Amino acid sequence: MSYKAPVEQIDFILSHVVPFGELARTERFAEATAETATAILSEAGKLAQNMLAPLNRAGDEHPARLENGVVRASPGFADGFRAIAEGGWVGVSADPEYGGMGLPQALNMAVAEMMSGACLSLQLNPLLTQGQIEALEHHASDELKSLYLPKLIGGEWSGTMNLTEPGAGSDVGALTTRAEPAGDGTYRITGQKIYITWGDSDVTANTCHLVLARLPGAAKGTRGISLFMVPKLIPDDRGEPGVFNSLKVVSLEEKLGIHGSPTCVMSYEGATGWLVGEEHKGMAAMFTMMNVARLGVGMQGVGVAEAALQKAVAYAIDRDQGGAIIGHPDVRRMLATGRAEVFAARAIGLACATAIDMARATSESDHAARAAFLTPIAKAYGTDVGIRVADMGVQVHGGMGYVEETGAAQYLRDVRITSIYEGTNGIQAMDLVGRKLADGGDAAMRLVDEVTDGAKAAQSAHPDLAHQLWQAAETLREATQALLDRDMPDRFAGAVPFLNAFARVLGGHYHLRAALAGGKAHQALARTFMARVLPRYAGDLAEVQAGVADLLALDDAALAGDQAA
Amino acid sequence: MSYKAPVEQIDFILSHVVPFGELARTERFAEATAETATAILSEAGKLAQNMLAPLNRAGDEHPARLENGVVRASPGFADGFRAIAEGGWVGVSADPEYGGMGLPQALNMAVAEMMSGACLSLQLNPLLTQGQIEALEHHASDELKSLYLPKLIGGEWSGTMNLTEPGAGSDVGALTTRAEPAGDGTYRITGQKIYITWGDSDVTANTCHLVLARLPGAAKGTRGISLFMVPKLIPDDRGEPGVFNSLKVVSLEEKLGIHGSPTCVMSYEGATGWLVGEEHKGMAAMFTMMNVARLGVGMQGVGVAEAALQKAVAYAIDRDQGGAIIGHPDVRRMLATGRAEVFAARAIGLACATAIDMARATSESDHAARAAFLTPIAKAYGTDVGIRVADMGVQVHGGMGYVEETGAAQYLRDVRITSIYEGTNGIQAMDLVGRKLADGGDAAMRLVDEVTDGAKAAQSAHPDLAHQLWQAAETLREATQALLDRDMPDRFAGAVPFLNAFARVLGGHYHLRAALAGGKAHQALARTFMARVLPRYAGDLAEVQAGVADLLALDDAALAGDQAA
Repeated sequence: MSYKAPVEQIDFILSHVVPFGELARTERFAEATAETATAILSEAGKLAQNMLAPLNRAGDEHPARLENGVVRASPGFADGFRAIAEGGWVGVSADPEYGGMGLPQALNMAVAEMMSGACLSLQLNPLLTQGQIEALEHHASDELKSLYLPKLIGGEWSGTMNLTEPGAGSDVGALTTRAEPAGDGTYRITGQKIYITWGDSDVTANTCHLVLARLPGAAKGTRGISLFMVPKLIPDDRGEPGVFNSLKVVSLEEKLGIHGSPTCVMSYEGATGWLVGEEHKGMAAMFTMMNVARLGVGMQGVGVAEAALQKAVAYAIDRDQGGAIIGHPDVRRMLATGRAEVFAARAIGLACATAIDMARATSESDHAARAAFLTPIAKAYGTDVGIRVADMGVQVHGGMGYVEETGAAQYLRDVRITSIYEGTNGIQAMDLVGRKLADGGDAAMRLVDEVTDGAKAAQSAHPDLAHQLWQAAETLREATQALLDRDMPDRFAGAVPFLNAFARVLGGHYHLRAALAGGKAHQALARTFMARVLPRYAGDLAEVQAGVADLLALDDAALAGDQAA
Repeated sequence: MSYKAPVEQIDFILSHVVPFGELARTERFAEATAETATAILSEAGKLAQNMLAPLNRAGDEHPARLENGVVRASPGFADGFRAIAEGGWVGVSADPEYGGMGLPQALNMAVAEMMSGACLSLQLNPLLTQGQIEALEHHASDELKSLYLPKLIGGEWSGTMNLTEPGAGSDVGALTTRAEPAGDGTYRITGQKIYITWGDSDVTANTCHLVLARLPGAAKGTRGISLFMVPKLIPDDRGEPGVFNSLKVVSLEEKLGIHGSPTCVMSYEGATGWLVGEEHKGMAAMFTMMNVARLGVGMQGVGVAEAALQKAVAYAIDRDQGGAIIGHPDVRRMLATGRAEVFAARAIGLACATAIDMARATSESDHAARAAFLTPIAKAYGTDVGIRVADMGVQVHGGMGYVEETGAAQYLRDVRITSIYEGTNGIQAMDLVGRKLADGGDAAMRLVDEVTDGAKAAQSAHPDLAHQLWQAAETLREATQALLDRDMPDRFAGAVPFLNAFARVLGGHYHLRAALAGGKAHQALARTFMARVLPRYAGDLAEVQAGVADLLALDDAALAGDQAA
């Protein structure tokens, strides 16, 4: 059985669960009507299920490989990427001035989810290219924009982000790549970067690297970092790929999954680069790129979860062990819980995207604050659900799930990276309890208010569900308030469970909205979520309350297993 | 950094946490003194860390392969197995009459844990051989015992179990392999079996298959199944490997992990077999084999968890990102939670093994009932912890964890099978809420009583921990009582969360005992468990209470994603 793009499910969420409808009432997104959304989702769904899904196994079985310094993509990937490019799907949300569709991120992220579910390895290419487009739109000079944006948006060229260096993972401030002014307005970039996704390939005519580096005399830490555009082939006078730049792919990583996505070690050896944004302000531009990519990664989790769940359901319907195993209560519990979590993660991601869009369309700070608050939740919860559901898919398949031939294990291997890249889920959670509560909890409390208001409104139609959700939200409110009074180490020790509790409550909120607006299936699914996923907030918040004390009482030797410690 | 066998940690649990000390007061296990235990653990620990751990990566990188119908094991595995055999480690608990050490399963399982942590792929061979030894000891004729047991116990030959057939996974009753009397007391076995672990190899001189098959005219279902010994090489008059039997390895599975363990498709083509036990009573004999193997698989989970945790701790100490990352509260939380869960799973497994031993030594039914009750918990919780901790190990390594070179991902790939084989964890949980509550909850309540008694006894030394545990145990008692009144579908829908809640409470119980008997490190670890693992029983039991209603309200189409369903 093959992947079926969840067009109707996404459409329902945009129509009834998240305030996507408000976008069409803004000037910026006046064209983003319900009809447009349906048409876009339907077309992207066809691409995903007909063109991309058939490439997924080949990407796993025939990894991208490095040949004479050039990356050869997996079989069929070039055609797949061309289909994405020609459909305009790289530029769904990009500036129409440079060839983009100018549509909301909510639609772009829905499309991203479907492409990820179909073929995660390939979808990483447009995802990172989109991040680069965002960064250039916001920070690059007009010359750079005119040169690069049409090529990137049209999918002729692709884009990468170069942060990590050997010995400096999440600690970006420790990077040592140098940028020296060449005197002609360009810079010479020298250094090594690792974990560069799609750092080279034969699916596009050029690969454009955004590279973080230090100018001479720059301050230490993240304040001394600048951002540079460093293309593989330097554009000639007509803007076409010209001579080779001084950079190369040193090697590809052998990874647990996403074998179709080449993960490169890059070496820049006096490569020519152009400054993007201001000197020493590279991190701001990189964060622009990362923010969109973070949400995109959350949607990758949702996409793979959907695909893995579909596969597991199909197997459970087919598999006979004294009746189809889908009738066994424990198998049904796994599948139903997965379906309920996929809905919740998708709704959270699309709510986040809609908030980003509203912030851009209205410049109201409440929307921006909401988008900022939801981003780490959408990233971490979406990817956790991706991993959880793919893992469940293996379990439902039993012994067949452990055999690679089935494909269930590939989903687990592939999606496992999503809780690590674009900032580990631990870093997302620390962002949430640190920076995202720095407003004194305003954004958090506005969300909790929305949940309790929603619960009150649903009281007559679904009294039990509404009451349960209301109680969870009020407990979360108290826990949030209590967290604001605590020191950072205490907050950080409870960051991940706090994020999880918040995601459960938000998931319950969107499920309740779906139960009100939808039919029997939505109501039943909401009940499953409230029975099996939501109640775990209590355990999460108990852990939040514990703070860091017990962790400090355990020394390193005790963690390693030394009982005398 | 390499695997360090957790000798002191196991010794502590046997000395202070589980009633291992009572065994030496029985006649059967009079030799199993604390000194013997320490000596055995220390020797096995050396074998595991010095001989077996160095083979683990080679097993992954150079999988067992099928050449001209013969399985060639991974490099070094033959030497590793020889070391296991020569140390007598296959026969730790086997009958001394046939060359075994006659020691308690508690020690055998401790040894199994360490061998699994060192090299899971290789350890599967002695684990299954031990299961075969158990089955023969209990069910085979004296002739078969005299012929096979010394060879198996001495590690000259190895043993397999052949249940599964294409199209019949956990539904053993559906099997179709035929056994026809040959007229000379032997049988001709014909059929195909899949997922046969170590179905052939060059590490032993012979491979002995215990095969489930149907005699002519046998009843349908599991009552018509008999068990046969079918050796690869038929023993000659001197009991040495003679002519080839009519069986072959058709192919090896390509799996997510345990690449060093050959998983065979076996074909029996009129192979000569000998009946083990009575006709049509094959399932009873197979269950003997499976019961020990089930607990052994639980200990595999613990072993891999220990190894993965050690690796993650070492990495977190080494890895500098503005200070070693082990100092970051979120990383510390992950490691501490893992350490607390490893302790709990190990204690539950060793408590189960001790109950098995006490049942055998005293023939008291309470011990047997406890062993039966704890087996599914030890299997499921041990393997869940294995997967959870290995997954956490990948996360702690960040991007490095996703790169195969590091070895963190191998632990996750390897251990992932343990929640599937020897009965999926869902089947374990159904066994728990079905058969294991068929005594009206006696065994369950006796365990809960032990927990509440322990909490009372700890009240003055650790009032907070004791109170928390007492409350959890009382809630569990009520939930167990409530479960007894429910129908099977309702029980089954809550089976997994019920098992998890029980494991949390038992884990808390053993942690509290450790806190009373041990030093600062044990007390701190107990606090971590009570803060981060135990409180989640409430969410588990909320799910148990939900029963099956919400699952039945969702039809198959809705699970597949059809909203109109």
